[in-house]
This record gives sequence, C-alpha cells and structure tokens, in this order.
Amino acid sequence: MNDTTREETQPLQPLIVLVRPQMGENIGAAARAMLNFGLTGMRIVAPRDGWPNPKAVAMAAGAGRVLDDARLFDTVEEAVADCSYVVATTARQRGLFLPVHDAEGAVKEIRTRQAGGERCAILFGGEKSGLATEDVARANAILTLPVNPEFSSLNLAQAVLLTAYEWRRSVDASLPFDSPYDDTPAPRQELDGMLAHLNGVLEEAGYFYPEDKRITMERNLRTMFTHARFTEAEIRLFRGMIRQLAYWGRGGSDS
Amino acid sequence: MNDTTREETQPLQPLIVLVRPQMGENIGAAARAMLNFGLTGMRIVAPRDGWPNPKAVAMAAGAGRVLDDARLFDTVEEAVADCSYVVATTARQRGLFLPVHDAEGAVKEIRTRQAGGERCAILFGGEKSGLATEDVARANAILTLPVNPEFSSLNLAQAVLLTAYEWRRSVDASLPFDSPYDDTPAPRQELDGMLAHLNGVLEEAGYFYPEDKRITMERNLRTMFTHARFTEAEIRLFRGMIRQLAYWGRGGSDS
Repeated sequence: MNDTTREETQPLQPLIVLVRPQMGENIGAAARAMLNFGLTGMRIVAPRDGWPNPKAVAMAAGAGRVLDDARLFDTVEEAVADCSYVVATTARQRGLFLPVHDAEGAVKEIRTRQAGGERCAILFGGEKSGLATEDVARANAILTLPVNPEFSSLNLAQAVLLTAYEWRRSVDASLPFDSPYDDTPAPRQELDGMLAHLNGVLEEAGYFYPEDKRITMERNLRTMFTHARFTEAEIRLFRGMIRQLAYWGRGGSDS
Repeated sequence: MNDTTREETQPLQPLIVLVRPQMGENIGAAARAMLNFGLTGMRIVAPRDGWPNPKAVAMAAGAGRVLDDARLFDTVEEAVADCSYVVATTARQRGLFLPVHDAEGAVKEIRTRQAGGERCAILFGGEKSGLATEDVARANAILTLPVNPEFSSLNLAQAVLLTAYEWRRSVDASLPFDSPYDDTPAPRQELDGMLAHLNGVLEEAGYFYPEDKRITMERNLRTMFTHARFTEAEIRLFRGMIRQLAYWGRGGSDS
C-alpha cells in the first residue's frame, strides 16, 4: 500500500474507488479517464488479477502516476473508512432508500460536502455485474447516468470518464483554447459602405437590367447581406474581392 | 453503401462522422458509445482498414446495428454534402475563425438548427492526429472539451461518448430509474411522540441519573434526533427497536 501523500494534497477531489475490477486494461483506461479531467486519487478493492498489474500500466500510458499512487484495499469497508460521503454508481435500482443523482447532481453534492471538509469517494463496480447491493448500501447516495434504456451497459472506464468530466466541469469548465472568433455584425454604416461599393461596381458591370427592376434588385441585395450579418473583417474581405473583380472587369485599370 | 432509411427516421439526431478512423475496435467502441446515449446515425470517411471491419463488429457487441446502418464515404465533403450545420471536434486551436463550443453548447446549437429542419453532423478525427485543418475549416463551429491541459488526449470512442452523453442530456435527462427515497423529515408531532416513547423507556431503564441532569440529558437527546431529521418511516423503525429493547429489559413482558 502506498502512502497517502498525493491523495492528501488533493483533499478537494473525490476518490475514485474501483471495486473488484477484473481486467487490468480497464483499470488503466480508468486512470487515463481520471487524469483527462484532472482526478488523481484512485483506490482499488480486491482486483481480480492482483496488484500491480502490468496490463493496467500498459493501458494507462501517460496516466501511470495515477496507478503508482493508487491504494489497494481488501474490502469496500476499508477503502472508504476515512470518507464521510460515499456515492455508489449503478445502472440498476436496488430497492435501497438512497437519493439518486445524475453525475452533475452527484458532483454538486460532493463539492458541497468537500467545502465542509468531508472526504468523499465514488464507488465503481467491476465489469461483470457492477457493485454488489451490500456495497451500494454503504453509500450516502446513488449516481446513475441517463443512458438509453435499450442499451445501457457502459464499461468501467466510460463510467469513470463521464463522472470525471462532470467533476471537472463543476470545478473549471474553461476550454483548452479560446476562439479568435467574434461574430458581432459590423455596424450598419460599414454594411452600407459595402453595398454602395458593390452597387457601383455592379452598375458598371451592367448588372441592373432592366432598369425598372433596379430598386427590387438593390433591395434584394441589401436583404441578403443584412441576413449574412458580416463582421467588419468579413466586410473588408468582401470589399477586397469586389475591388479585384472590378479591376479585372475594367481590363486591369483602377477606375 | 447502405440506404438512408434509418438515418431518415431520426432526422432530429446529429450524424456522427468518423473521419479516417484507424482501428476497427475504436469504430466499434464509438458505435457502443453512440447507442448508449441513443444516437444511431454513423458515417465513416475512408477508414484505414476498409469496410466492413470485423474488429469493429466484435467490439460493437449489442450496438452492431449502428455499424450495419453506417454509411461509407471517400471524403468529408461527400459525407456532409446533405448537412447544413457541421461541428468539428478538436483539442487544438487551428487559427480558424470559427466559434468554439463545449459539448453542451455545441449540442444546444445543433438542437436549435434541427428544430429549423437542418441536418447536422459532428466530425471526429482519427486516432493518430485528429481532424485535418481542412476538415475543420468545413465546419460551422468547433467542439472542444474541458480536458486537463496536462493530459488532454481522449480516444475516439471517449470523445464520441461525451458528445453523445451531452446530446442525450439535452433531449431527455431522465434517469433509468427513480428513487423510492423521500427524505422529508417527519412532522414534529411524530418526533415528539418518538422522544416521549424513548424517554419513558430510558426512565424505566434508569438512564436519567443523576436526577439534576435529566433536563440537560433530555434536551441533548432532542437535539440529536432533531439533527437526524428522521422520516416517518425511520421513526417507525426506531420506535420498533426501542419497543423490543424495552420488552427485553422488562424480562420479556410488554409493560
């Protein structure tokens, strides 16, 4: 069993407790899923193939440190002995009188408890049949996901992934990069300038024909470009395009 | 290429487009992730190992029908030719002037467009390096996830899973089962009845000693059981327990 140093430095994270997991690959994939969303405290109860497990290490790839720091226990009771709020993940109703939350709701409860200094844990059952009902009965609440009832089986790492994702969103929903995109439409005077420019060039090109349709044609152009909601940058781009078409239409001269 | 029958019956779902996926296992896992959250329309662009792919079928397990109905294309251009709103998933900024959304935001945009009758698609890049910048440039918007910047690589099926999960939550966040749990505390008269019962039994058992501490002791009991916020069912359970203890304390008689 490792020391608790790393766990202790992250008191405001829920511990992810894998209960009787079977395949090492799934333990490794769960470690990756945790680290993808910033969780690092893993506990493992009675893994079928013993511990450490080379297949877990191979699958964890860059998340090996989550496995290095994982703590091993014989029973769920021991794994949550130092926790005061425990959530059990299950896809099946157990007839237990426990509150049922989705991942977002469970994470919200956990954050409230943690703000009060409580250590929290989330239990995930093994691949074969999930948590035993006795395990769920040790929890304060059930976490379940809004899966398609006709196809509800999620694998272990996927259940961990969705939970870790909601955890991170609750802590820091910021995205890894910002957008340079600004879709604010240009002020009308910019649009009007563009339309005057365009109409002038189209006039020169002989577009407004017959003459009695001119008003309607100009109006339709205005509607179309109003609808397009061009930004100032897009208007500059468009005017550059028109300028070049006009230059070309004039046989390579500028006016 | 299959016909579009199944896709056409689900016009209000975004199509999941896998662009140059490599491992069949990941295509199968993506199919499972889609069906877990109710998505069924998959399109595949230029899969490395050809199509159909037996490894995809093996991994898809119960989600084989998603693969059966998947449509194959040579290029992204063809795969989204009938779509009017396209979202590209990427973990990297591309210098493109596109809006950036998280999964929840992207799904919200898609639902708005679909309500207006638009066919929508979400592009996912292959395992090696994700989408090409040219693919992203075909999109109306970028979808990215709030991953841990120090460990951001999600596999294909995980990215599909998180997107499908947000999709389902936006459509129907209901959980697969309800809770029989009702934590409404019993009305005070029930609590008072329980305390009177308890105090009577404790009196009989010689608990209130010394006499001058009785008031404090009773008050502490009241505070403790008020804090416990027992429901009516819990109060019945508690009183049953006290009744039996009293029966036993009396040497097996009822009064």
